[in-house]
Amino acid sequence: MPDSTKDGARDMLGRAKAIRAAQALEFILNNTPQAPQPVEEVSLDDAYGRVLAADINAPEDMPGFDRSTVDGYALKASDTFGASETGPAYLNVTHEIMMGQEPDFELAPGKAAKIATGGMLPEGADAVLMFEYAQLLQDVLEAQMALAPGDNVTLKGEDVSAGSLIVEAGERLTPYAVSAAAGLGVVAIKVHARPRVSIISTGDEIVPPETALKPGLIRDSNSYALRGMIVDDGCVPLVRGIFKDDFEAIRDEMVRSVKESEAVLITGGSSVGTKDMAERVINELGEIAFHGVTIRPGKPLLFGVIDGTPVFGLPGHPRAVQVCFEVFVRPALYKLSGLKVDLALEEAVGSVKARLSKSIHSTQGRRDIIPVRLELKEDGLWAEPLMSKSGLLLSMVRAHGAFSIEVGSTGVEKGEQVSVRLR
Amino acid sequence: MPDSTKDGARDMLGRAKAIRAAQALEFILNNTPQAPQPVEEVSLDDAYGRVLAADINAPEDMPGFDRSTVDGYALKASDTFGASETGPAYLNVTHEIMMGQEPDFELAPGKAAKIATGGMLPEGADAVLMFEYAQLLQDVLEAQMALAPGDNVTLKGEDVSAGSLIVEAGERLTPYAVSAAAGLGVVAIKVHARPRVSIISTGDEIVPPETALKPGLIRDSNSYALRGMIVDDGCVPLVRGIFKDDFEAIRDEMVRSVKESEAVLITGGSSVGTKDMAERVINELGEIAFHGVTIRPGKPLLFGVIDGTPVFGLPGHPRAVQVCFEVFVRPALYKLSGLKVDLALEEAVGSVKARLSKSIHSTQGRRDIIPVRLELKEDGLWAEPLMSKSGLLLSMVRAHGAFSIEVGSTGVEKGEQVSVRLR
Repeated sequence: MPDSTKDGARDMLGRAKAIRAAQALEFILNNTPQAPQPVEEVSLDDAYGRVLAADINAPEDMPGFDRSTVDGYALKASDTFGASETGPAYLNVTHEIMMGQEPDFELAPGKAAKIATGGMLPEGADAVLMFEYAQLLQDVLEAQMALAPGDNVTLKGEDVSAGSLIVEAGERLTPYAVSAAAGLGVVAIKVHARPRVSIISTGDEIVPPETALKPGLIRDSNSYALRGMIVDDGCVPLVRGIFKDDFEAIRDEMVRSVKESEAVLITGGSSVGTKDMAERVINELGEIAFHGVTIRPGKPLLFGVIDGTPVFGLPGHPRAVQVCFEVFVRPALYKLSGLKVDLALEEAVGSVKARLSKSIHSTQGRRDIIPVRLELKEDGLWAEPLMSKSGLLLSMVRAHGAFSIEVGSTGVEKGEQVSVRLR
Repeated sequence: MPDSTKDGARDMLGRAKAIRAAQALEFILNNTPQAPQPVEEVSLDDAYGRVLAADINAPEDMPGFDRSTVDGYALKASDTFGASETGPAYLNVTHEIMMGQEPDFELAPGKAAKIATGGMLPEGADAVLMFEYAQLLQDVLEAQMALAPGDNVTLKGEDVSAGSLIVEAGERLTPYAVSAAAGLGVVAIKVHARPRVSIISTGDEIVPPETALKPGLIRDSNSYALRGMIVDDGCVPLVRGIFKDDFEAIRDEMVRSVKESEAVLITGGSSVGTKDMAERVINELGEIAFHGVTIRPGKPLLFGVIDGTPVFGLPGHPRAVQVCFEVFVRPALYKLSGLKVDLALEEAVGSVKARLSKSIHSTQGRRDIIPVRLELKEDGLWAEPLMSKSGLLLSMVRAHGAFSIEVGSTGVEKGEQVSVRLR
């Protein structure tokens, strides 16, 4: 456990001082276990998107035999030395190689065998002459090109040699990784169990979406954004329901959630009663690591640990929920998943450069995260900032991503280039 | 049906001449129906990732009441006019507003009510004074700041006004779109049925992954890559199995597949017998639109239509399968899905700029697609070309994306910037 800030600096209202995002993320990752769940074995069909728990090494050479890469004639390259269009070499075509079959003959010098792409070379052959450079008269092959040994052939083990590393533990299995495993006959795959993530919603004013609203009430939307993001990150959301201002009920649900999941998200709670509920519950059951980050939206983020399980207290504002998830929860889910991610590379690859279509001002001392919609114009990508005061939900739906105005900056002018982190 | 190329130009071997990629894509999209399947109604839980079939409009204002955005005191702004830290205004705190409840009183001039973030403003109030600018002595509130009407308040309908468009038909539902629907009480969502995509594998040499290999045989890997890509694109793969060189069997399977799915992918087939099977089958049952594209890998791509269903004949080479899927099949699946995609924006947003770490030469007259692995160095992103001759499967597994060397170019030099289309 890192130094807790709960006894640290406090502002004039007695609240713990906000820490910077990088420090917050460090706290979070230091307190998040690496793939705590058992390893499972799944079939190829169930392997897509899973995080590999043990290296996949090639059990055998691929291809398992010398294989033609073209349609043509298998032959010994030395029989074509010096051949050209005007001075061809002549060979006898004595065989035809059937696909999927091992040739039951050895090719003698001066002989050739018809072969298709993917066909297995016979003993005695070391190259394949493409149809385009061959003329056949009866059984006599006119070779109009000189070949070197290995031309138009994939040698046994040339694609993959037995024992070589195909996919590394900690990678998420793409369609191509599953495809490679299939090709190598690796049909049982060891993967990390998907982390379960509990979502506890709190707030006296929050009701389920199917409820007809009375004045003063709003519908739960945050847990729907969270479960979608959790699934997209390859984890299993456990929606715990909506809890009113009742300390015991929330504490009991937290105890269950910590037991049954690898991470817990508790969304506030803007009523006076529930606002500090997450902090009180974590303080009673475990320890608070920090409360407050110099980021907007998302400043009231709370993080603590109960029985080794990371617990995130997310502010109730929908944009804050989104930003806190993307910036702080996601890297923790990666670690819980056993996923090895180069976060810097992921950020570089997951970002595009665009010019800002409107100036945005910011306050020094905090990082502002501004959602944008991208537009491709004749002179390249432009980013339209979507302001969140009005049309909050719409701006979340319409955004392609967001850019940051860093702590030391006071804003970005219209036309300046920004780096937009994509959804 | 556009002009078929089957009676068009032929090369010296009697094969239909290859057409350019852009023309091929135009043929494909012109022959792919727009969302041919019925519309389904799904719950919020099942809406993630689905393609919306009818606009979602807000059935009501959001919020449905004037709502405080801070913790503080609801009051009439005019009661604070001229107030400052040194010359505060004084009001009487007469009420406290409970979260989730409609205030049952009207605020008289000179009065204030304690309110939390998200609380409903009472009649008579039009602004909220933050705690930070308030001092309370007994019931007397010292307001140290002048407010304007609307300060720290989200007005009824300010976020979303009743009737406004929230998510447009043809968009894929993100977690934020589902969240917005939940917040607005839209709990039944009209979506397009997921297109079903049949995968027919052909080739005498192809066996299932669990098979112990005899010389001359290789395991099916292509159908595993295809089903993963199909699922990632929100469609339903129907794996039809592996078919040997048997025209009737493949034709009968094609008839079933065309009946039971919205698109058919048939992978060749490099044996002499199966190589032209897809073309023969499509010719008998429907019409070939083109055979061959000036793209590498992927040149032998075949496209035709049977009973209105698009049918793709994919070359057997794993990289060619991948490239043909990404360049030609995916846009067709989008159209079948009812997805409205700005392909140019998608390409711009789905690409990153990187410098090439090794020179690559190409042949004029065709578009070469080169897989790369990205590396983030101190001076930015670099792309390492992964050559496919050796280590084919490994290069597919390791690639982050690919860049194109266009038809008119002879190559790209080391250090030059390329645009890498990400997976």
